[in-house]
Amino acid sequence: MYCETDEELLELVERARKYTDQGKVASYIPALERADQNDLSLALYYTDDKCIKAGDVEKKFTLQSVSKVLALALAIMDRGENEVFQKVGMEPTGDPFNSIAKLETQIPAKPLNPMINAGALVVTSMISGTSIHEKLGRLLALVHDMTNNSSIDIDLEVAKSEFETAHLNRSLCYFMKQHGIVEGDVEELIELYTKQCAIQVTCYDLARIGMILANKGTDPKTKRKILPERIATIVKTFMVTCGMYNASGEFAIQVGIPSKSGVSGAILGLVPPSLGIGIYGPALNEKGNSIGGVKLLEMLSQRYDLSIF
Amino acid sequence: MYCETDEELLELVERARKYTDQGKVASYIPALERADQNDLSLALYYTDDKCIKAGDVEKKFTLQSVSKVLALALAIMDRGENEVFQKVGMEPTGDPFNSIAKLETQIPAKPLNPMINAGALVVTSMISGTSIHEKLGRLLALVHDMTNNSSIDIDLEVAKSEFETAHLNRSLCYFMKQHGIVEGDVEELIELYTKQCAIQVTCYDLARIGMILANKGTDPKTKRKILPERIATIVKTFMVTCGMYNASGEFAIQVGIPSKSGVSGAILGLVPPSLGIGIYGPALNEKGNSIGGVKLLEMLSQRYDLSIF
Amino acid sequence: MYCETDEELLELVERARKYTDQGKVASYIPALERADQNDLSLALYYTDDKCIKAGDVEKKFTLQSVSKVLALALAIMDRGENEVFQKVGMEPTGDPFNSIAKLETQIPAKPLNPMINAGALVVTSMISGTSIHEKLGRLLALVHDMTNNSSIDIDLEVAKSEFETAHLNRSLCYFMKQHGIVEGDVEELIELYTKQCAIQVTCYDLARIGMILANKGTDPKTKRKILPERIATIVKTFMVTCGMYNASGEFAIQVGIPSKSGVSGAILGLVPPSLGIGIYGPALNEKGNSIGGVKLLEMLSQRYDLSIF
Amino acid sequence: MYCETDEELLELVERARKYTDQGKVASYIPALERADQNDLSLALYYTDDKCIKAGDVEKKFTLQSVSKVLALALAIMDRGENEVFQKVGMEPTGDPFNSIAKLETQIPAKPLNPMINAGALVVTSMISGTSIHEKLGRLLALVHDMTNNSSIDIDLEVAKSEFETAHLNRSLCYFMKQHGIVEGDVEELIELYTKQCAIQVTCYDLARIGMILANKGTDPKTKRKILPERIATIVKTFMVTCGMYNASGEFAIQVGIPSKSGVSGAILGLVPPSLGIGIYGPALNEKGNSIGGVKLLEMLSQRYDLSIF
Repeated sequence: MYCETDEELLELVERARKYTDQGKVASYIPALERADQNDLSLALYYTDDKCIKAGDVEKKFTLQSVSKVLALALAIMDRGENEVFQKVGMEPTGDPFNSIAKLETQIPAKPLNPMINAGALVVTSMISGTSIHEKLGRLLALVHDMTNNSSIDIDLEVAKSEFETAHLNRSLCYFMKQHGIVEGDVEELIELYTKQCAIQVTCYDLARIGMILANKGTDPKTKRKILPERIATIVKTFMVTCGMYNASGEFAIQVGIPSKSGVSGAILGLVPPSLGIGIYGPALNEKGNSIGGVKLLEMLSQRYDLSIF
Repeated sequence: MYCETDEELLELVERARKYTDQGKVASYIPALERADQNDLSLALYYTDDKCIKAGDVEKKFTLQSVSKVLALALAIMDRGENEVFQKVGMEPTGDPFNSIAKLETQIPAKPLNPMINAGALVVTSMISGTSIHEKLGRLLALVHDMTNNSSIDIDLEVAKSEFETAHLNRSLCYFMKQHGIVEGDVEELIELYTKQCAIQVTCYDLARIGMILANKGTDPKTKRKILPERIATIVKTFMVTCGMYNASGEFAIQVGIPSKSGVSGAILGLVPPSLGIGIYGPALNEKGNSIGGVKLLEMLSQRYDLSIF
Repeated sequence: MYCETDEELLELVERARKYTDQGKVASYIPALERADQNDLSLALYYTDDKCIKAGDVEKKFTLQSVSKVLALALAIMDRGENEVFQKVGMEPTGDPFNSIAKLETQIPAKPLNPMINAGALVVTSMISGTSIHEKLGRLLALVHDMTNNSSIDIDLEVAKSEFETAHLNRSLCYFMKQHGIVEGDVEELIELYTKQCAIQVTCYDLARIGMILANKGTDPKTKRKILPERIATIVKTFMVTCGMYNASGEFAIQVGIPSKSGVSGAILGLVPPSLGIGIYGPALNEKGNSIGGVKLLEMLSQRYDLSIF
Repeated sequence: MYCETDEELLELVERARKYTDQGKVASYIPALERADQNDLSLALYYTDDKCIKAGDVEKKFTLQSVSKVLALALAIMDRGENEVFQKVGMEPTGDPFNSIAKLETQIPAKPLNPMINAGALVVTSMISGTSIHEKLGRLLALVHDMTNNSSIDIDLEVAKSEFETAHLNRSLCYFMKQHGIVEGDVEELIELYTKQCAIQVTCYDLARIGMILANKGTDPKTKRKILPERIATIVKTFMVTCGMYNASGEFAIQVGIPSKSGVSGAILGLVPPSLGIGIYGPALNEKGNSIGGVKLLEMLSQRYDLSIF
């Protein structure tokens, strides 16, 4: 794959980069804290295999919450819609992504959607496999297929740090285990989940994942159906209703590009039927989304009329 | 306007009508309780002025919560985006439409979005006018313009009954008045709001409203811009993220048609760029949406591939 | 009644007065805001008709939430325990006194106890009488009996200000009206409640009320049973479990004197079987209790070993 | 110690036993489920070493939540009031004993009181010792001292079952660990806590523990101060404000005897200055308190005028 620097994109990136000083790099683990606050990069990948880019595109970063959409796709392929959505809902929530309160106040105690942590943990627990190794291998294989990049692997330092500090996620898991929503060993689930979040990619990779989703799950080059169209639709819908933490509603109005963000500063975006977007900008706004990335998507949406609404 | 009965639609309506026995007609006021549980009707209105229909399309019904999208459009025209969204948020919520708890737990106490009752009351309080009469007249004028039907008026019996029983809405208003979100006389606001909800329409009218929104706010016949495009976009986005009470997320996945429902059994839908949908089916499911109407939209979405996702 | 200044009490009052600078006078209505932040006074009234005092004992103040215990006593006399506690619970709550959230999350929507605002409003709605005037007259008659002071009346300026700003209480009432917990006209209930809160007393009066409760409801001088012993017990118990807002638990441990405070800076206390305590100190701590008054009760409890635990 | 069967008590026990059919034995672990639903027993222990009894007094049972008061006493002896109450509050709560929601909505995330599970886990984490074995040994030593019965030990079968099913407590611990309220290894804390709950006693033992607390912490026979008086006061106060789960408020009014119940059907009670009460009745009411035990305490309170209010 060849990706050319685009002057117009570069101008947008530089304008958006000015906002990075107002954000904050995630600091709960050392590996994230070391990120450069002013980094910002963008890649656009089209179904005709064209790619354009701007900014610090060679930087690698971990998927973090962006992995939630990929785990969801895999879990639905493994278990079917019915089984997955018996254990996790489809509704957006006004609560923070790591909140536990609704698990207690709602009956049954099932997480409202697969994009909040509780829901994502349930989803990951439904990936098929006889070991953590096999489950993770299957998720990585999906990522390799979507990115056409089989060198993608786990950042083990990040995974280890997250594993050691994931007490809130353990709390969510044990709560759901009490209520029969999550089964099996919690420590193993946390290990799998933190490794899933530590999958390391570049903007190009993200952009190609977005392009595959925009193209309804099929790789336009090989014609291979990586995901069933129905699953691509489900994933895209969640990206709109719950993809940007509890700024998703505002983002839908101001930007209108189905997107999923992660605490590393990653944003996966897409515009049906032909465009995938990958962004990296580790400085986060108060909602936990890349501050430069959100600005950049606003500018892209306005300049090229990309809102789906 | 001439609207022809369509055989294919008729078949869908009859299939969906079978589900109406499983729903329940709203019973909190006599006028709604008198509705015929098995009524179901559908009108589709296209930008080329074509209209097709099926079912009990001559039945009149009140807008109820469907009026929230029209009041929102008018309030933004009156006050501007900034002022409106300083007082009401843009985020979906996992809580019921009439919930008060988040007003207490969130700081500031502003409603999460304009589609829940608290938010809709704030929005209605921002419609310009020196009297209830003038404010309501301005809202009716907007409805007349969008429907091209100047005979539309209030069902005063419904308005009166709702006014007498609107204690929960009064509770929401006084709570927000305490926190400076709502200003002015609460009884006047409740009167305006209950009259807004009691605007009486048919499926044709709803379908034409949807068509205007699908067409970005412009009447394709007269070329008149009834709403600015930006406001049409905002309204459509809220219909996706919060239009179907707290079944909005599931509806986005299963149907994918921007829609807003009301407790009368009304559903306003639209498919950009050219189709408006009006549905009436008073039997409601447990989430408060027309049970036959939701089924019908599912069938329409699947048969004609109408999902925006 | 003759009440002598006591030197030992005076020393305690002066020591406690030093803390008044750290508190804040209630400022939501002008009449309360005008209070002198450093005022602090104390009266002790014994069943043998002895009274001792210290500090600014001639200052008058309104009962505010202290009135909740008197309204509760009257409502139980009027309706019986069963009817009253069908509409209001007996449990302490960790939520603020003016919270509405639990009314929504608990089923049925009955207030947790009669000392939080929601519960107190329900209780006041159960006072017998054919008019506000008659109900208030009956409550004042109870106050006159307990204090042996028939000159006690309403501070109409305070009542009027509170009535005008009581939006949160209106919100609570309409919420409970929706759920059938409160009946009748809300504005009339708010008028009665704000007048009840505006009953104007001195420390002596409070101390004598406490003494009657300590003496199981009987006036030791006249031998008249003003309250049944059972009702005195109920009232005393609520003073322990919920009398000091959501600092009641800590107060029980640190002080152990059954007490009820009000936002005016009033505290009604009692030590069975023979002592009533009246305190006024308008500077409040962050929980809404008189900061000097709480200090004073701590000192009294320690010096004279007054804790009931 | 010699404990004589009392005919009057026996009559009360038999009257209260009639209610046991309306309760339910705890069934979440097999060892508790095997209890005999109709068992009911009572022992009263006086400071003059007199003991009277009635019912199935030889039955052994585990302390369960009754252990919370003993662990609290030990933790305060170990760490001092200040340190303990920096990590756990003193306020009753209207929420269920195993609720997690307030940990999220309150800032800081400290449990409201030491009688709910979250608070009890924090307290147990503050018992001094270099190993689970040592900590548990120190707690058992306290129990031996208070009961004058050094044969008391752990029911290991119960401890093991509870350890295996304690997912909700793990959830609480990890949540608090995330917020720095609990430190150290969660599995070790759960092991210590479940063993503490599995301390096995009889009614006599409970009654003697109550008597020591009633006597301000001192053993009247040996004159040894087992607990400082201040700690006995703190413990007694919590028994009143939060000892009977979220029926504590009603129990204070209807019974007025400081008490702490456990899911095994145990109730520890006391009447200052001279009486300790031990009850066992495994059939529970809907609040989780021994249904026969609560009835029995009501009868005792009324017949012998034992309410502290």
